[in-house]
Amino acid sequence: MKKSLGAKIIVAATHVWVIGTYDKEGKPNMMTAAWGGVCCSQPPCVAVSLRKATYTYGNITERKAFTVNVPSADYVKQTDYVGIYSGRNTDKLSIAKFTPVRSDFVDAPYVKEFPLVLECKLLHTIEIGLHTQFIGEMLDVKAEESILGANGMPEVNKVAPFFYSPGNRTYYSIGEYLGKAHSMGKVD
Amino acid sequence: MKKSLGAKIIVAATHVWVIGTYDKEGKPNMMTAAWGGVCCSQPPCVAVSLRKATYTYGNITERKAFTVNVPSADYVKQTDYVGIYSGRNTDKLSIAKFTPVRSDFVDAPYVKEFPLVLECKLLHTIEIGLHTQFIGEMLDVKAEESILGANGMPEVNKVAPFFYSPGNRTYYSIGEYLGKAHSMGKVD
Repeated sequence: MKKSLGAKIIVAATHVWVIGTYDKEGKPNMMTAAWGGVCCSQPPCVAVSLRKATYTYGNITERKAFTVNVPSADYVKQTDYVGIYSGRNTDKLSIAKFTPVRSDFVDAPYVKEFPLVLECKLLHTIEIGLHTQFIGEMLDVKAEESILGANGMPEVNKVAPFFYSPGNRTYYSIGEYLGKAHSMGKVD
Repeated sequence: MKKSLGAKIIVAATHVWVIGTYDKEGKPNMMTAAWGGVCCSQPPCVAVSLRKATYTYGNITERKAFTVNVPSADYVKQTDYVGIYSGRNTDKLSIAKFTPVRSDFVDAPYVKEFPLVLECKLLHTIEIGLHTQFIGEMLDVKAEESILGANGMPEVNKVAPFFYSPGNRTYYSIGEYLGKAHSMGKVD
């Protein structure tokens, strides 16, 4: 039996991404964002939604670029930290011990310590309400060599991403392998 | 040391959602989508990206509504199935054994068997490239009473959502509780 919970953001679990930008003066900033996802395969694009009040909002608007950094579960505490405080008045990266590295393809820094990073060029800005959605075209994906499998792709258990549950405001790790997509559901 | 993998959709893991719609004649359809996410808190909105070629694309355009259905890992095989075949020429719901239920707030059906469903009214349509992004305002969230915790929110381990890894085309379950968000990263 289903119970109505109203119009609330309750979606089981979202990914947790850290968004890397430079401000006007070139100071690198990182902020955690859980609203977003892949939004197109060709061109390969991701969407990230931010409130106008965030420092990152102004940085993306100014620089037309951002990075999406996928933290491993080892960094859950520091990732939570950069989501709570603003880079406007805090030296977040020093405290979190995240090393900013200049991207090769876009005007934004990525987190050296994270296993997987996406370099994104701003393509569209969509005003929705409290959040503005930034759609970025992925110009490059970079992965730590140590997490790559035999097929040259990142192994999920080595990336060790984690997830955010908006209903309970809690974090969860990734679990077990369940099967092959576009395959296990095939019928003859 | 980071290795460049090029401009490919490699984002560790995305959620797996099943999108519910009615076609012109009122026939219910369900299709799996991994491109999307939450995109605004106020109004509460989710984004789902689909190719124009899908049956669901036409249905959302026609009906201005869709549901987002969060499957538990018990349904991974059937969820993969409804992502492979088209409702245009297959009686997908009978084969998957998904029971469509008419939503209370929007003109779209949800999956009775799934623990968590969102009823969404189409708010924006954004052409990006191969995929079109539909932004839907969540008018209601419904959850199975059996998955609700003491605070009235769905317990993540009872929803048991699973994730899709685009790089490897594999599914993974959710893992362990890691900590409280907006809290574990606090510094004094």
